[in-house]
Amino acid sequence: MDQSPPEPGPDVPQTIEGYYLLHDIYNVDWAALRRLSSAERTRVAEEGAAWLRSSAAVDQGDSAAYSIITQKGDLMFLHYRHTPDELSAIELSLKQIELSDYLIPAYSYLSIIEVSLYEVMAIAMKRLAERGITPKSPEFADAKEEEISKQRKHMDDRLYRDVPAQKYISFYPMNKKRGETVNWYAMPLDERRAMMRGHGSIGHKYHEIVTQVISGSVGLDDWEWGVDLHSDDTLVFKKLIYEMRFDSASALFAEFGPFYTGIRRSAEEIGVIVAGRQVT
Amino acid sequence: MDQSPPEPGPDVPQTIEGYYLLHDIYNVDWAALRRLSSAERTRVAEEGAAWLRSSAAVDQGDSAAYSIITQKGDLMFLHYRHTPDELSAIELSLKQIELSDYLIPAYSYLSIIEVSLYEVMAIAMKRLAERGITPKSPEFADAKEEEISKQRKHMDDRLYRDVPAQKYISFYPMNKKRGETVNWYAMPLDERRAMMRGHGSIGHKYHEIVTQVISGSVGLDDWEWGVDLHSDDTLVFKKLIYEMRFDSASALFAEFGPFYTGIRRSAEEIGVIVAGRQVT
Amino acid sequence: MDQSPPEPGPDVPQTIEGYYLLHDIYNVDWAALRRLSSAERTRVAEEGAAWLRSSAAVDQGDSAAYSIITQKGDLMFLHYRHTPDELSAIELSLKQIELSDYLIPAYSYLSIIEVSLYEVMAIAMKRLAERGITPKSPEFADAKEEEISKQRKHMDDRLYRDVPAQKYISFYPMNKKRGETVNWYAMPLDERRAMMRGHGSIGHKYHEIVTQVISGSVGLDDWEWGVDLHSDDTLVFKKLIYEMRFDSASALFAEFGPFYTGIRRSAEEIGVIVAGRQVT
Amino acid sequence: MDQSPPEPGPDVPQTIEGYYLLHDIYNVDWAALRRLSSAERTRVAEEGAAWLRSSAAVDQGDSAAYSIITQKGDLMFLHYRHTPDELSAIELSLKQIELSDYLIPAYSYLSIIEVSLYEVMAIAMKRLAERGITPKSPEFADAKEEEISKQRKHMDDRLYRDVPAQKYISFYPMNKKRGETVNWYAMPLDERRAMMRGHGSIGHKYHEIVTQVISGSVGLDDWEWGVDLHSDDTLVFKKLIYEMRFDSASALFAEFGPFYTGIRRSAEEIGVIVAGRQVT
Amino acid sequence: MDQSPPEPGPDVPQTIEGYYLLHDIYNVDWAALRRLSSAERTRVAEEGAAWLRSSAAVDQGDSAAYSIITQKGDLMFLHYRHTPDELSAIELSLKQIELSDYLIPAYSYLSIIEVSLYEVMAIAMKRLAERGITPKSPEFADAKEEEISKQRKHMDDRLYRDVPAQKYISFYPMNKKRGETVNWYAMPLDERRAMMRGHGSIGHKYHEIVTQVISGSVGLDDWEWGVDLHSDDTLVFKKLIYEMRFDSASALFAEFGPFYTGIRRSAEEIGVIVAGRQVT
Repeated sequence: MDQSPPEPGPDVPQTIEGYYLLHDIYNVDWAALRRLSSAERTRVAEEGAAWLRSSAAVDQGDSAAYSIITQKGDLMFLHYRHTPDELSAIELSLKQIELSDYLIPAYSYLSIIEVSLYEVMAIAMKRLAERGITPKSPEFADAKEEEISKQRKHMDDRLYRDVPAQKYISFYPMNKKRGETVNWYAMPLDERRAMMRGHGSIGHKYHEIVTQVISGSVGLDDWEWGVDLHSDDTLVFKKLIYEMRFDSASALFAEFGPFYTGIRRSAEEIGVIVAGRQVT
Repeated sequence: MDQSPPEPGPDVPQTIEGYYLLHDIYNVDWAALRRLSSAERTRVAEEGAAWLRSSAAVDQGDSAAYSIITQKGDLMFLHYRHTPDELSAIELSLKQIELSDYLIPAYSYLSIIEVSLYEVMAIAMKRLAERGITPKSPEFADAKEEEISKQRKHMDDRLYRDVPAQKYISFYPMNKKRGETVNWYAMPLDERRAMMRGHGSIGHKYHEIVTQVISGSVGLDDWEWGVDLHSDDTLVFKKLIYEMRFDSASALFAEFGPFYTGIRRSAEEIGVIVAGRQVT
Repeated sequence: MDQSPPEPGPDVPQTIEGYYLLHDIYNVDWAALRRLSSAERTRVAEEGAAWLRSSAAVDQGDSAAYSIITQKGDLMFLHYRHTPDELSAIELSLKQIELSDYLIPAYSYLSIIEVSLYEVMAIAMKRLAERGITPKSPEFADAKEEEISKQRKHMDDRLYRDVPAQKYISFYPMNKKRGETVNWYAMPLDERRAMMRGHGSIGHKYHEIVTQVISGSVGLDDWEWGVDLHSDDTLVFKKLIYEMRFDSASALFAEFGPFYTGIRRSAEEIGVIVAGRQVT
Repeated sequence: MDQSPPEPGPDVPQTIEGYYLLHDIYNVDWAALRRLSSAERTRVAEEGAAWLRSSAAVDQGDSAAYSIITQKGDLMFLHYRHTPDELSAIELSLKQIELSDYLIPAYSYLSIIEVSLYEVMAIAMKRLAERGITPKSPEFADAKEEEISKQRKHMDDRLYRDVPAQKYISFYPMNKKRGETVNWYAMPLDERRAMMRGHGSIGHKYHEIVTQVISGSVGLDDWEWGVDLHSDDTLVFKKLIYEMRFDSASALFAEFGPFYTGIRRSAEEIGVIVAGRQVT
Repeated sequence: MDQSPPEPGPDVPQTIEGYYLLHDIYNVDWAALRRLSSAERTRVAEEGAAWLRSSAAVDQGDSAAYSIITQKGDLMFLHYRHTPDELSAIELSLKQIELSDYLIPAYSYLSIIEVSLYEVMAIAMKRLAERGITPKSPEFADAKEEEISKQRKHMDDRLYRDVPAQKYISFYPMNKKRGETVNWYAMPLDERRAMMRGHGSIGHKYHEIVTQVISGSVGLDDWEWGVDLHSDDTLVFKKLIYEMRFDSASALFAEFGPFYTGIRRSAEEIGVIVAGRQVT
């Protein structure tokens, strides 16, 4: 891995990538679990909780679990890791514990956290303007360099972060449309950039109550992006996405995959759920 | 949850939300039920009926059950609750009773009852006009405030209501189309509002024989809305939806998911059905 | 059910409805049937035949059975009944007999026989013309009333009829297209009516060798109509539908669901097939 | 069946039909087969081979078997018969032998061999021209009648033929597109005919190395046609269909279903494969 | 197979084909594996490793294995062979070993490595130009022949090669769009060629860190091409495909099937994984 990918062409938005993400959703075979003795079921539950605890305790990266509402899944595991190899190892480690005998695959998604360089540049320029520094100012070059490098550091906090702590998650994959007349990838760069700015400003309105984690999946999985919204209020997911649906980037170009709504569960709560007791 | 979502932009219809809804549809594994002894089967049936009865007996919210016609399902449970956490708890509580071993997941849907503020405002203005009060009348401001606050109270009766009592239900999820040339979200607000008015007036014609419960699901599930029609005559579902299909909002913009037609069943009747006896 | 639906708007074709229809298609678990002893299998087969015989012996309505060709199904039951409650009761009664343990759900469809009032009116006017009675004739009003009432009686023979007796069936659900530029529901009523006339005249050419039963399913199931063709020659299905595909109503606007081709089986033959013997 | 279908309208291509075709594709439950004793497995294999041998030995019609490559199937049976009743009887006879317990339904297709009369007429006119006979020649009428009757005889060899003997098969169902602007069924007859001529001339280039069997399935199954290509070289399937994809009839109007690539197997080879030995 | 396909028409890109490819993806039934005794499981794992080792040791062709990330598969086998018969034999040989009882079919794909002659010709002409030889040079004809024959030899290294050795794979099938207005197959040859050139030049930028294997599947499987990217860095898949998405050939005309991301595993590692131990 000593060779970097070549620079993208002028029309291609430049992105920087961080952790690989695996969303891993299962239904539970409750009937089979119930057929276990109480002691066996407790053992399965505790082993599962221990597996999640140790997955989350990794040095670099993170793991979390959610109860999915509706029949689309019972449990979702969300893993952040540096390499696809680590994600594959987590998948295989789950298969080695007994809990996996009671998990029915429902959906999964492979992607990688991404931040657009345009976004970084836009923030840097805005901060320079706030400091009264224009491209004509003598200190512009140094100040710009400094701001960008601050942004890059801030970016690392987004690229290599832990799973946001909020109680609820809304996860969905999406594409930009490539229709016969409405085709995102055939739009001029400037128009794409302007639309993404409008799109971003809606996200910004919500940034205190929603944490967004955008991950790219072109060439890795069936859609182009995975989106995770984390909030302490599920109603906010509806409000945010509904408002975005009216801005051009979404109204014209967004194609959505399935939506998964989940409630964050600690390792202990996963144990409680698998053991068949109510989470209190 | 002490932070409210920000105000939506000027083009975005403002909505107020009430109960979260879970539609939960299952097929029954009749062959496995038949393999039980009569006493076992009765126990399973009674436990199921008791679970439904206690779910419906909740202080705030409601639960109901339906027989679905066709192979798309045998039973549908419909739950109204204040929070997604309560819905998740209901899902998990069903998994803890033996009946769930005989239920095969068929379809489910998560949404939240919504009322549009435009709708509220329109009704208030109409009532003011009926009272002869125009925007130029000196008492207009106070009268308007009073009417809106009456409407809000009335709205609460829709947002936080019990499951309508009628015998039949037609449930279906739907989207507004975002095609390449026909795109609801790219239409001017005025045209959208005019179309929704025409749409609403058809609904109004039927309001004495059909109760509509509209729930939003953007960001929560795979379609944008869930629609429940409740009536004592299934033919009315056909007449109402067919007539709507010719108004612009539906003719041009509606995309429909699967339709589920059901017959309301009491907890006792659910017990009778699971026990393998005919409902009388 | 003492309240009638309101009159539809001027653009909406008025229809009159008759029996509710349930198409109920299953594959057979032949391996499990073979594992039964000969006596057990005979009992299952006879019980199944008896269920079908008694379903068909209902006072009002009818039931029939077909062998479906191809893997899309082994058996199709077709029920005509006055109410959805009766159809639900038939579904539940099938679940109570042992045969149902060997039936794997494959497809089903809920609809209601419909006749368009335009069609009735058109026939009445044609007959008046044949009798030399024009709108200017003094006896026009009475004669028209008389013809329409004759037609209504004839209509009852279509709305509340038995399952046609012919040997073969072709069943398929369908929609009228609501595309971005080609949209049936956005066409003027006159053009829709003219297209349906052309469509109907092809059907008329075949009326001596094909019986059509059109049922509406808007608001009841996933497509807008169910179509049953009954004939003593399956080739006729191909000829009729292929010819229709070139008239405007079909060429431009028809969207078809799956097609099921079946051979009518008596209750005795169903018993023979389930018992594993060849129908002679 | 004493009544013939009426003549089609002037825009509808006239066709003549021959044998009904059933493509019947299964995966094999190899794990269950392996659990049999060697003697049992041999018995199952031999019974299966005998069933295929006797199906193929029918007086009128034919039956053949193929190994399908990829997971889309393990075995495909292809039956040619005079009536749908005979195809249904074959389906039921397969269900009566033990091999069927180890066959998992994968795909199937019902259609009927068809030849277009336009095609017949075109060939007849071409042969008359070769003989120097023009519409103005005095002997034209008789000669034309004679040529058409020759063609009809030749046509019978195509309508009622055995399964072509070549080693490989490519089977796929297809439609002519009915899009919003590109709609085969809305094209003038002359343009359709011209496109089919271009299409046919590509087929003709390959006729020495590929045998095509075209079957119609409008009103019988989910697509409009089934296409079987038979050749001793699978590469020819790719070359032929790729070349056709650039002629207008295919480029603009063809919609393709799944493709199945198979290797012809004798009854003996089917026995060898089911018994778990390698075909040599 | 002594007859070659005819020359394609002037609009059809000429291609030369090499090995047939089978992608064969399975999920593993880990619960059933765990129910085996340790000795049994080791035997199943070793037998599987031996099968893969001997498949890869074939004289002409190659076989490789991958761990697929996400629930879309656990293991992918990739086989290169001269004939479909050999691929069918490999499929059947896998069914004869016990490991196959623990493999659940997930996806598969049949295709054949292809190289376009345009591409060969373009490279030859470029090399002639580099040598200063123009179509007017006296030595042009001989030099051109020589260059093309060099290219053909180089082509053989691509048509009949081993599976590239890199650690990661991205596999996906794809089509060129045949929409109502955007239709690859209705574009003039020159425009298609120009777009493919732009497309190729992006691929070329990455050629040191990605090996592409393009295989055609028209007439063989459900999409038109299969694409394999092999690299030592999965991020490169994202960068390469994302950049291509903005060039016209992809932006306007590409339709993508599912994407599979895998990690190369040796026969020994496959044994380790099946035995339930972590790959180190």
